[in-house]
This record gives sequence, structure tokens and C-alpha cells, in this order.
Amino acid sequence: MSETAVTGREERVRGIIETARAKRPRFKEPRVTMSHGAGGKATQTLIEGVFVPAFGSGALEELADAGNFTIDELGLAMTTDTFVVRPIRFPGGSIGELAVNGTVNDLAAGGARPVAITVALVLEEGLEADDLRAEVEAIAEAAKVAEVQIVAGDTKVVERGHADSLYVCTTGVGRLDHRSRLSPASLRAGDRVLVSGPVGEHGTAIMLARGDLGLDAETESDTRPLWDVADALMEAAGEELRCMRDATRGGVATVLNELARASKASVLVAEDRVPVSPTVAAAGELLGIDPMYVANEGVMVACVAPGSADAALEALRAVPGCEAAADIGEVGAEPPGMVLIDTAFGGRRVMDLLAGDPLPRIC
Amino acid sequence: MSETAVTGREERVRGIIETARAKRPRFKEPRVTMSHGAGGKATQTLIEGVFVPAFGSGALEELADAGNFTIDELGLAMTTDTFVVRPIRFPGGSIGELAVNGTVNDLAAGGARPVAITVALVLEEGLEADDLRAEVEAIAEAAKVAEVQIVAGDTKVVERGHADSLYVCTTGVGRLDHRSRLSPASLRAGDRVLVSGPVGEHGTAIMLARGDLGLDAETESDTRPLWDVADALMEAAGEELRCMRDATRGGVATVLNELARASKASVLVAEDRVPVSPTVAAAGELLGIDPMYVANEGVMVACVAPGSADAALEALRAVPGCEAAADIGEVGAEPPGMVLIDTAFGGRRVMDLLAGDPLPRIC
Repeated sequence: MSETAVTGREERVRGIIETARAKRPRFKEPRVTMSHGAGGKATQTLIEGVFVPAFGSGALEELADAGNFTIDELGLAMTTDTFVVRPIRFPGGSIGELAVNGTVNDLAAGGARPVAITVALVLEEGLEADDLRAEVEAIAEAAKVAEVQIVAGDTKVVERGHADSLYVCTTGVGRLDHRSRLSPASLRAGDRVLVSGPVGEHGTAIMLARGDLGLDAETESDTRPLWDVADALMEAAGEELRCMRDATRGGVATVLNELARASKASVLVAEDRVPVSPTVAAAGELLGIDPMYVANEGVMVACVAPGSADAALEALRAVPGCEAAADIGEVGAEPPGMVLIDTAFGGRRVMDLLAGDPLPRIC
Repeated sequence: MSETAVTGREERVRGIIETARAKRPRFKEPRVTMSHGAGGKATQTLIEGVFVPAFGSGALEELADAGNFTIDELGLAMTTDTFVVRPIRFPGGSIGELAVNGTVNDLAAGGARPVAITVALVLEEGLEADDLRAEVEAIAEAAKVAEVQIVAGDTKVVERGHADSLYVCTTGVGRLDHRSRLSPASLRAGDRVLVSGPVGEHGTAIMLARGDLGLDAETESDTRPLWDVADALMEAAGEELRCMRDATRGGVATVLNELARASKASVLVAEDRVPVSPTVAAAGELLGIDPMYVANEGVMVACVAPGSADAALEALRAVPGCEAAADIGEVGAEPPGMVLIDTAFGGRRVMDLLAGDPLPRIC
């Protein structure tokens, strides 16, 4: 996908670009809607229109998965996430496992080795004790696998009907690794875009578990800790690793849009190189949702300078579970801040942030 | 309240003690009830019966306000809390301010200077944008006052009816201060018990704001950051400061019970020395709830060796807002693990952990 592949279609695309190009959004709506929690355009409006102006912290303005700070010159990263997934158990995982992996993965994506996490539970009155026990055990097991220590916890109970079984908020602290200097600002035209595995598994597993689709197929969530992936990428590419992102809510498409906006570069994806399982593809077609927008809980997106891209891809594929890792596209200069996709049918279109919320309560 | 004050009443008390004395509780109930979130006996059963065995971390087993860990020999403390208070605004504060102060206070009580916090919001679909903005601003302002940096955030939205306006989970990281070695295990007979201000203000403010009491009085929540209090105590008492606790859910009585259990010492409180405002006392009487069990959001409980107790109390009273700090009792040897109170009417009784939940959703 070199720059020369950009053809006369550009003109049609340009009209869309003019209107879509990133401005700092304002939050104008009178009420919060489900789409504000979906990770797409509405979430971004909320973050950039309400949180960033109020909190005004450099760490937050980067809109990265984790925020960095130092204590006595020790570089630390910290991240937090509440998990409200419905149902709480699904093929391949459960809310407790998800809550640990999601948080350690945000640290890993920020180039920080996860060290400690906290777990805060909001329980709905009437929650079965066995369900609670199962999730507490899932949390403990996931922390063990991810090699993080659970250092503090909290429990609140709200009246029946004021939560949905349980919500889990996990917060993690990690130690920044200095092999790579990760920042979307370092993206350059020609950088390669890698994904660590097939996309859309988690979101599809949740949809199928809800039985909304009437599909007989089943697929498993890809929930897993990703520090080994981050470690392999940093080891293989060193300073040529530009940045990593854990492609959760909003999927790979949303992550690429965030990177394009933050770097003022463009990203061009080759749809036919994106690894997608047949079940995920079928479910996506049925629902009219592109798997690129479907949540993952074990897929790292990485941008790597061209000279180290092959080594990075090879290192990725050597990580257990990442055999299907792929090079799915490249960073370009034009149009700045935008993501384009060359579809499998030969067209090229803008792959924008989603405006609505196709899949609420996915994580 | 010297040991000699323990009289023949001891015999009557002993019977109660035999049955009440701390064993590691089991969690036997089939379902979660509101009382499991109240901070009393049921919460303890949940923590000790479900969380500690599963998570099995040394940091957690101490059941302290914050957990400690080290990265590269740097001593850190970390704590997390979800706030589900109802209503979200009340005289003296709001959920956003509470969420910041509650978390920095857990760090302060653990002897750690608060450095960084994260904020995770669960929003109910339909929440008014102005309510959200007000709380985001309250969070920002409270962080500024408490001198902590907000380094990361998260937002989830759940369907109408699956949350109550908004829930806020804050997690903080602090740097351990080494002037004092804080541990309830260091409690010794003769140590003094100090409180930094009048008790029961926060919980009473919430009850009155709910209008449940039909009382015309109003009182303000005492929500405030307590690092200056912790700092003053450590500076004044150094290694003679045995431990500190932020007396939130369950109030001062619950904190003292936790300390007594953890230290296997006893605590004897002189009720007439406990600072209580007339409004809090009246509301407590009306409801039949002892203000000692009512939540505070700006009261530190400290145990200090007798030789430094006067200096510590003087230092406390010099902190703005802590002019009413008081010495309310002393640590004894017998009966181990129990808290006794000499009431204003001349009786002595056990001040046990509460079994039920008089005040749900207080923080």
C-alpha cells in the first residue's frame, strides 16, 4: 500500500474529509446517551469536550490507554477501566478475567510492565454468592497469569435494579520500559501497521452469547494479557516501534483513527490483509457491522518503522497465540488525521470513527 | 481512661465477648445484601471470607485503607474506592469531590503522600449533561486542592435503570513517607486514641439531604483531603505514631474495631470526650444510630504512644479545620480484639461491629 496506490478516487474522498476532519469537538447534548460509552465519536466528544478541558492534565490530553507520571524519577504508568459487560460470563471468559486483562493490556500498550492492580466492585443487591465467588476467582486467576499483584480492593452494594449483577473497576500501575519511545506523534509516512491476531473476536462472542443474532455459531472472546506481545515488539523493534494500542471498544478502526488524529498522519489499511475468522466475518455481515469496529480484548495494534517491521512481525508471530499476526497497512502523509481502507472489492473509502453505538456494554 | 477504670462490670461484658470475639468469618449467605456494602460485620465477612482467600495477597490481608508495594525499591501505596452516594449532591459536597477526597485520604491514612489518581465513571443513560459537567468540575477542583494529578480516566454508559445517575471509581497512588512506621500491629496498651474532628457529619448530612428524617436541621458533609492532617501527625509524633485510619463507612466505631482485631489489643473510648455536633447528636438520637457508627469523610483516627500524644494532639489542632480534635480514649490489653465504651451515663459496653446496614449508599 504505497502512496502511489492513492488514485483519482481521492477527489471523491476529499469532500468527505473536509467535513470529517478533526476539530476539537464540543459536547452539546443535553443528556448522556448509550453512544457516549461506545468508544466512538460520541465518546471522543465527551472526553475532549468535557474531561480534557476540566482535568487539563498533559497525561490525559494524549488520550492514550495509560497515563504516565514519575515519582523520584521512576517512570510509572497508570490506567483505569470499569467493566460493565453483559452477560457477565461468555464463551472464552467472564467479566472478572476481562477486568484484569483489559487493565494490564492498557499498561502493556503504553510500554509499561504491569506490576500492581486494584479491584473495585459494585454489586447489585441479590447477586448470587456463587456468581460473586466465580468472578473473584476469575480475577485472582487472571492476575496470577498476568503476573500482577492485587494490592487493594473495594466493594459497594447498590439496591436491586441499580446495577446489572456486578461492575468491576480495575486500575493498574506499571513500570515504564525504556526500550521504545512510544508516542503517536512519532508516526511517519511509510511506517507499517501490525495487528497481533484476528480482529473482532471478543465483541462477536458477546453478541452471540446474548443470543441477539439467532446464529447457531459460537466464537470465543480473545481475552488475554498482552504484556508478552508488548515485550516481544519492544525487543524486536526497539526505538523503531512507534506506538502500540490495545484495540478494545470500537475495535481496530477506532484505534487507527485515534492514532491518525494524534499524529496528523493518515493510515491506509488493506482490508484483505486483516485477519478475520469466518464466524466473525459472518456475524459482522449479518449485523452490518464491520469487524474492524468490533471490540477485541487480546489484539495489539502496533506501528513500526519500515526497517524493523519484518522483524517485529516475526517476533509477534513467535508469541503463543499470535501466529495469525499480520501487517495490515501503512502510515501515509495525506489526508492528515484520516484512516482510509482499500476494500476487498477494490474500492477505497474513509474508515471514520463510528457516530453511534452498535454494541453497548461490550466490556 | 486508665486500666484501673475497668471495674466489676467486666464480668457482664465477658459473656458478650466470648461469643463476639474475632474468628475468621465465613461467607455463608446465598446472595449479596445491602449490608455487605455497609462497612460493618457483613462487609468484613465478605472481605475475609471471599476476597482474602482468593486474592491471598499480603497487602490485602492487612485490610488497611491502602495496599503497599515497591517498584525499584521505591515504596508506593495504592488504594481504590467506588462512590455510589445518593443523592449525588448534598450540603458540603458532591460525589465528585467525595471521590477524590476519599481516595487521597486512604493514601494519607496509610502514610503516603498522594501523587496521582485515576477517575472511572459509570454513567446512567439519560444523565443530564449539566450534572455530569458539575461533577467533572468538582473532581478537577478537588484534585487541585488535594494536589494530585489526574493521570487517566474511563467512561462507561449503562442503560437507564442500571445505575443511579453516576458512579465514580477513583484510584490513587502515593509515595510512602518514612517518618512513621504505621501498622495496627504496633498498638500497645497505654497508646492514646485521637480523632481529628467532630464525628458523624458526612453520614448525617446525607441522611438529612435525603429528607428521610423530616428534620428541619441541616449539617454539612466534612469531606476534605487529609494529607495535611497525616503530615502534621507524622511530623509531631514520628515513630510514636502507631497508625492512622480514615473513618469513613461504619464510622469511628468500625475503624476502632478493625484496629482492635488487627492488633489483638482492646480499645476503651470515653464517650463524653468524643466531639459530636448538636445536629449530629440529635439526628443520631432520632434514628437510634450512634454517631460513632456514622460515616465521616474528613476525620482521621490516630493511635499515638503516650509520650507523644499531647504533641500530636496539639499539632492536629493547629491544622485548619481540626480545632475540635480530641483524645477520645486509650488502647488496653484486655479484652483482646474488642472495643469498649464508657458511656456518658456511666455504663460500660461493648462497641461491636454493626451487623446490619443502617445507612446504605453513604459514599
